[in-house]
Amino acid sequence: MSDLKDESALHVNKGVHQPSDVNNEAINKFKSKKKSDISVDELVNGIRSGNITLLSRAITIIESSNFAHQKIAAQIVEKCLPHSGNSIRIGITGVPGVGKSTFIESFGKKLTSMKKKLAVLAVDPSSEKTKGSILGDKTRMEELSSDPNAYIRPSPSSGSLGGVARKTRETIILCEAAGFDVILVETVGVGQSEIAVHGMVDFFLLLLLAGAGDELQGIKRGIMEMADAIAINKADGDNIEKARLARAEFINALHLFPLPESGWSPKVFTCSGLHTEGLTQIWNSIIEYLEFTNNNGYFKKRRLNQAKYWMYETINEGLKENFYNQPEIKQKLEDLEDKVVKEQACSFKTARHLLESYFKHIERQR
Amino acid sequence: MSDLKDESALHVNKGVHQPSDVNNEAINKFKSKKKSDISVDELVNGIRSGNITLLSRAITIIESSNFAHQKIAAQIVEKCLPHSGNSIRIGITGVPGVGKSTFIESFGKKLTSMKKKLAVLAVDPSSEKTKGSILGDKTRMEELSSDPNAYIRPSPSSGSLGGVARKTRETIILCEAAGFDVILVETVGVGQSEIAVHGMVDFFLLLLLAGAGDELQGIKRGIMEMADAIAINKADGDNIEKARLARAEFINALHLFPLPESGWSPKVFTCSGLHTEGLTQIWNSIIEYLEFTNNNGYFKKRRLNQAKYWMYETINEGLKENFYNQPEIKQKLEDLEDKVVKEQACSFKTARHLLESYFKHIERQR
Repeated sequence: MSDLKDESALHVNKGVHQPSDVNNEAINKFKSKKKSDISVDELVNGIRSGNITLLSRAITIIESSNFAHQKIAAQIVEKCLPHSGNSIRIGITGVPGVGKSTFIESFGKKLTSMKKKLAVLAVDPSSEKTKGSILGDKTRMEELSSDPNAYIRPSPSSGSLGGVARKTRETIILCEAAGFDVILVETVGVGQSEIAVHGMVDFFLLLLLAGAGDELQGIKRGIMEMADAIAINKADGDNIEKARLARAEFINALHLFPLPESGWSPKVFTCSGLHTEGLTQIWNSIIEYLEFTNNNGYFKKRRLNQAKYWMYETINEGLKENFYNQPEIKQKLEDLEDKVVKEQACSFKTARHLLESYFKHIERQR
Repeated sequence: MSDLKDESALHVNKGVHQPSDVNNEAINKFKSKKKSDISVDELVNGIRSGNITLLSRAITIIESSNFAHQKIAAQIVEKCLPHSGNSIRIGITGVPGVGKSTFIESFGKKLTSMKKKLAVLAVDPSSEKTKGSILGDKTRMEELSSDPNAYIRPSPSSGSLGGVARKTRETIILCEAAGFDVILVETVGVGQSEIAVHGMVDFFLLLLLAGAGDELQGIKRGIMEMADAIAINKADGDNIEKARLARAEFINALHLFPLPESGWSPKVFTCSGLHTEGLTQIWNSIIEYLEFTNNNGYFKKRRLNQAKYWMYETINEGLKENFYNQPEIKQKLEDLEDKVVKEQACSFKTARHLLESYFKHIERQR
């Protein structure tokens, strides 16, 4: 079972990018400057040479709501874009309690032991409320966070899922320019976060638990059909038999569903993050998937569609942000929404009324 | 199997509304006036008295892109809203070839034989291209379209799914004010149309065919989990055994999935639209569902959430319409999208560039 597949033959995108070691000399040079002295070009060069400090700084700029920072962020992303694309992007989701942190730590350690540079990102829209994300918390993955070949970043906090998703996608571009080979994006089942993550990765892995019966614990409907592989975790100790039964049931169920657009039949595995079992087969399956979808053209097509999708998502987010942040709209909206819900007002008329006052308001501005 | 359930005990919403016969005298009175003489109040009164001619006219106004008509449409909907809500809204989807028309005709005839007034609407975003919808085409359902208690309306044609969906939802309100007891909304599996329909109905029915194996024919992933009931059609002649097998497989598969928010376990049936078999059990299942969700409060909660959802959908559609219809944006967009897809331009920078020019442009307008 240690027949690890080698994906180096896969040229994921233009330019074969070699992971670099951290450049100590460069770090010292940059550290000696005042923070404000760093130009965009210096930042980008630092990122491309694998300088983690500068990478972190650039990501912080990307996550900033400050208007001036957003301009700089756009320049950084634009300059990193030609050097991006050459990683394997894997989305991981599962309900709280499924053992995601332990799984990612074990899986991550396996990848770094294979000499891969790994970035672990997170999409957690609830981080806005808690002002800190449960996901990407380094204390959850202590071993991995002290691994020199792993980089763990908590979820951006933001006003909306759209904002968090966009910043994460930009962060992926930067991490790829910095030479990371594998990028994991984790998310819990909050709102539409799985859809957002699915829209920015190559492969989507769903972690499940075998239940008291064989039913699923808490997973949201619709997520199952997004998965390229399902891993039934905690297949250890007394739980092994239950996990295997659940696996058999899922294999039966999945073959009733239509094939995804990729043409790939989703796989079902059992594994144990805690005991580091079954992880190799999951990785091998990801490599098979990449070979398969590179061969049939789906991989490239999906990445291009994702780029287009994110352009439109960014436009639509921008339109909504401008609207919902207008003080007049903010003031009226809560009351109107309440009336609509109580059926005292027509949802359409309310919407049209708000839109009219918004467009008049914009026109009056100088 | 003719143990039909009676839902009259269910008070679906405020006010018990009795279906009325067409008011011949009223028709003659309105016909004698010039079209332009009809006031909104007269239209609404006509709708409420069950006048199908005036209902059709009002729906045509709702479907119009003409700006003046949109103002009138908003008034009509607002005045009908207090008299709406008292119908059972059922969404029906299935792949082309599943026998949807035949099913709806047979199912519809059963409902009208039970003295129910039935409206059949359609959401078909492709109707824009063909300038006519395949769905709601009266020649497909000849018997039903000549049934005095049935009203069949083709899909609105529109520039976008959002527009089609909104107009259909407004049409539902008008049909309910006109006294219809059951409203079927059909859709084919195009784009996101199932999601839109699912968001405007109480119950979502998925029609399937048993395949050569037991796999699904052409259904889009994600739709299965939306269904409150699945009906495997064409369970007749040589196909009966295959249909029953498929049913058994689906029942097994479905119980692996989490329960929907309603708490209702989706049901799986076999039926034959052509031979009018199995339709009673489907209708009984719908009634059970209504009882179940009325009792646990989900029915009301869902309708309120749908109202709120449509308010936000209408706002977001309005924002997008204004943006994407700007000549400057139209002109730039195709070229920029092409560059993004070819990875010659960053999707975010492109989006931000377009947004900036849009907001500047709006501000310059008087």
